Amino acid sequence: MNLTDILKLDDRGLIPVITVDFYNNQVLMLAYANREAIEMSLKTGYAHYFSRSRNKLWMKGETSGHTQKIKQILFDCDEDTLLYKVEQKGAACHTSHRSCFYREFYRGEVREIEPVIEDFDGIIYKTEE
Amino acid sequence: MNLTDILKLDDRGLIPVITVDFYNNQVLMLAYANREAIEMSLKTGYAHYFSRSRNKLWMKGETSGHTQKIKQILFDCDEDTLLYKVEQKGAACHTSHRSCFYREFYRGEVREIEPVIEDFDGIIYKTEE
Repeated sequence: MNLTDILKLDDRGLIPVITVDFYNNQVLMLAYANREAIEMSLKTGYAHYFSRSRNKLWMKGETSGHTQKIKQILFDCDEDTLLYKVEQKGAACHTSHRSCFYREFYRGEVREIEPVIEDFDGIIYKTEE
Repeated sequence: MNLTDILKLDDRGLIPVITVDFYNNQVLMLAYANREAIEMSLKTGYAHYFSRSRNKLWMKGETSGHTQKIKQILFDCDEDTLLYKVEQKGAACHTSHRSCFYREFYRGEVREIEPVIEDFDGIIYKTEE
């Protein structure tokens, strides 16, 4: 059975993909896939998407190294949304936040609720020489 | 600040909403909201969506009782996806599964990975009379 035969792509040939952290279910991002992106994800085991702005297939982390190894693939009751559970390397968001959903709306204000991820440089344990 | 002023709705005036369980982050469903659905969600504290098939506003659980009390509202880096963290009553899915994502695709097969939710009828503890 082919996954792409089960799914209902929209009139642009796309389907939304919710990507979450396999280990704690944190929602990392929402992106879109076309048939080719789904097939490449299945074939390689790494999340591929279709960029609507650049109008092309892309592998998540191809340049940043922040890849998403797919651990589980789910789809919803209407077969029109995918859910990838992934092992996320580093930040899923181009802003260096772990998740693209790093801001909340609370009582009329926008608040950042997540730090950016930075490489630990060991400063805390540096001793004077 | 108005949430609807921050968000970028698509050319149909819609934005995808990922809805997750506030307590364990399980993804429950993906639906769409228009400006009115967002405003009604903010005003009432309960998740409202816009049905693309019925072309109308609906409050989740209005007939089933399976309401979603919103605990937290997040949005993504592009401001084109919403994330509601909710207190879900009963099943989020019309199939009586807790989540609409109750099926996985695994090695060419589709598998149900969640039971349906049924009201507990106390049968286990019934004693013969």
